[in-house]
Amino acid sequence: MKMDIQFIDNGSVSSPLGFLAAGVTAGFKRSGAPDMALLASECPCRVAGAFTANLFAAAPVTYDRQILSGEGMVRAVVINSGIANACTGARGLEDSRKSASLVAEALGVKPEEVLVASTGRIGDFLPMDIMAKGVKLGVEVLSSTGGAAAARAIMTTDTRPKSFAVRIDVGGKTVTLGGMTKGAGMICPRLRPAHPKQATMLAFVTTDANISVAALRASLDSSIDCSFNRITIDGDTSTNDTFLVLANGKAGNAEIQPGSPEQRLFAEALSALAGRLAKEMVKDGEGVTRFVEVNVTGAKSDADARICAEAIANSELCKTAWFGADPNWGRILCAAGYSGIAFDPAKVNLDLQHVATVRNGQDAKVATEEELGKLCDAPEVIIDLDLGSGNGKFTEWTCDLTYQYVKINADYHT
Amino acid sequence: MKMDIQFIDNGSVSSPLGFLAAGVTAGFKRSGAPDMALLASECPCRVAGAFTANLFAAAPVTYDRQILSGEGMVRAVVINSGIANACTGARGLEDSRKSASLVAEALGVKPEEVLVASTGRIGDFLPMDIMAKGVKLGVEVLSSTGGAAAARAIMTTDTRPKSFAVRIDVGGKTVTLGGMTKGAGMICPRLRPAHPKQATMLAFVTTDANISVAALRASLDSSIDCSFNRITIDGDTSTNDTFLVLANGKAGNAEIQPGSPEQRLFAEALSALAGRLAKEMVKDGEGVTRFVEVNVTGAKSDADARICAEAIANSELCKTAWFGADPNWGRILCAAGYSGIAFDPAKVNLDLQHVATVRNGQDAKVATEEELGKLCDAPEVIIDLDLGSGNGKFTEWTCDLTYQYVKINADYHT
Repeated sequence: MKMDIQFIDNGSVSSPLGFLAAGVTAGFKRSGAPDMALLASECPCRVAGAFTANLFAAAPVTYDRQILSGEGMVRAVVINSGIANACTGARGLEDSRKSASLVAEALGVKPEEVLVASTGRIGDFLPMDIMAKGVKLGVEVLSSTGGAAAARAIMTTDTRPKSFAVRIDVGGKTVTLGGMTKGAGMICPRLRPAHPKQATMLAFVTTDANISVAALRASLDSSIDCSFNRITIDGDTSTNDTFLVLANGKAGNAEIQPGSPEQRLFAEALSALAGRLAKEMVKDGEGVTRFVEVNVTGAKSDADARICAEAIANSELCKTAWFGADPNWGRILCAAGYSGIAFDPAKVNLDLQHVATVRNGQDAKVATEEELGKLCDAPEVIIDLDLGSGNGKFTEWTCDLTYQYVKINADYHT
Repeated sequence: MKMDIQFIDNGSVSSPLGFLAAGVTAGFKRSGAPDMALLASECPCRVAGAFTANLFAAAPVTYDRQILSGEGMVRAVVINSGIANACTGARGLEDSRKSASLVAEALGVKPEEVLVASTGRIGDFLPMDIMAKGVKLGVEVLSSTGGAAAARAIMTTDTRPKSFAVRIDVGGKTVTLGGMTKGAGMICPRLRPAHPKQATMLAFVTTDANISVAALRASLDSSIDCSFNRITIDGDTSTNDTFLVLANGKAGNAEIQPGSPEQRLFAEALSALAGRLAKEMVKDGEGVTRFVEVNVTGAKSDADARICAEAIANSELCKTAWFGADPNWGRILCAAGYSGIAFDPAKVNLDLQHVATVRNGQDAKVATEEELGKLCDAPEVIIDLDLGSGNGKFTEWTCDLTYQYVKINADYHT
């Protein structure tokens, strides 16, 4: 079996067979920028999803969870940007339901076949007249080349759309997965799979794979920890985080079953696509000038490694140092030290950009501060922290904290 | 018994009887600013302390813990700013020991009667020639009016010294407590008492009270949670956090015993002094323009309320909103929602500056966003969050996140 995973030029959610997409300006944003996306499939889709762990889960999250708790197929997703429809109580949930109904009516499908997602400001109700107008506009322009427009319409403070697609070969059939995502603040997704178990980060993957629901869910579950659940921009886990995967079976492959080599390949492709989307989300995070990969090894457990990597990735002092290309390893060790996990400080080694920086908890004195500073003045910084206390490991993707982040979030108005 | 606690004008660590202090320029800082403080008592002191919870506890912390694990009296404390003596291994510990010996020799006391503290950059060794020079200079200028100079000498990125003193009446005798502290970044102290358990935040309190060691320790323990352990500037818990209380008995009161009314009064005075020092530290935090008090009530437990208050106080999105005087309650609820504690989102109420802002998890629509914004454009902002799910409560003191914070920490060099 060919295990190749190929990224496609200009790939998007409309790359897989049978998927249509649209991006339009409905009017949720005062700026007049595109603010509504529609995804639709020519035939029913199996679906898997994961949603925010935040207790204040927004209305669209609550609505989608209800839909996904059934075993039904879905046909479409409607996404608005500018208003999060969070902290809106019963009326918010009713507005999500109405939004789905509007799309269902326009497409001639059932309301329970439509999923919803929202991103933007918390606390405001969705204006349903604008929603109705947007749905009308969107349905009119749905097309098999609309993926790029859809990726643009879900953006809030993102500076560029994030849209990719990959191809794999499943039993001689070409299977395509397309994805789009948006950030760019309130990004520290800690998704929980909808079955059985929850930024506004929104991410949508379409695929023409023929795959059983169980195999689709298993693939989604395994993709999360090596993609969205390993990123943080600002440590704030949103009320609206949503990751949906829709599979319409149009590729014509034999149905992919859980645990099969084909399912492993599909899961790998999904992880590659989701990982790419997650990484690009961090690179396009609010005010970000530098992408930082924090690899923690040698912890007592993977869970410990994760706690440690997250503490470093969310440390204001580490993040501002990275902005300044300051190779300040003391702040990294400090964050590991207060993360709450147990390890022996005297056994800790740290490499910055693959150069020995700390050995046994002290300055390795291999490179000068100036030399390390020059190495850290790069678009991507790699930090390898070995706690020397076990086999646990985790990788977190994060970014620097800049003037621009402060500006965006102190002057926030759409 | 009079329960009055009086703050004294221009109070300092040299206000209590029998305490001498000094602040000098030894040469640890390249800037030439004062960088060494000495505290000394004319007679032996009982001592209580609390230190950082960080696993990478700095050498002076390890050294002081050893001293405090004995039952001996102490006579002096030497504090340097500019170099933290953290992540410096066996040599760092030896340097702390040598520093204490230098002071002991100069004052004619035993080495084990001298405590040490350091703050500044992590990773560098203490230059012992500079330490020797500083000790010599400091001992020469020790005086009963040296408290202000000492408070200035322990500063790093602080913009002003933080120095206070309070007086109480204990059985007809006037007892004085003097204190000083410094921040101003890497501030999220989570002190653990040295007995029996463990920013650089440094804080020192002197008192002429005659008080048993047990009563002194109990007073320190009860003061922590309503002072240093309820503040955060940037969420980074330092390797060097140290809080020491020295009592020399010069006030001549009958010895204060644990559990007595006098001990409760002393503890209240210590809490008032430590609370004031902690609050001023936040107000003088790196780049701070606004002080924010986060009162969480209605949690299932005090521990839950603390977790929730800390999540809000450390949220980059909340902190940048406060900088912009943005009454963005959605970010506050969002932080509560991802903090990890359990509560019913539909029962949550929030007041900003004592104005009803959220009721039952939704916009209270009592004041307009513009009205709330004007109220939040104040030097101090009060947030009252009632989770409606129990009797647990906690108050956290924090601040906004500003351009200046980013600048200070991206361009950090002493």
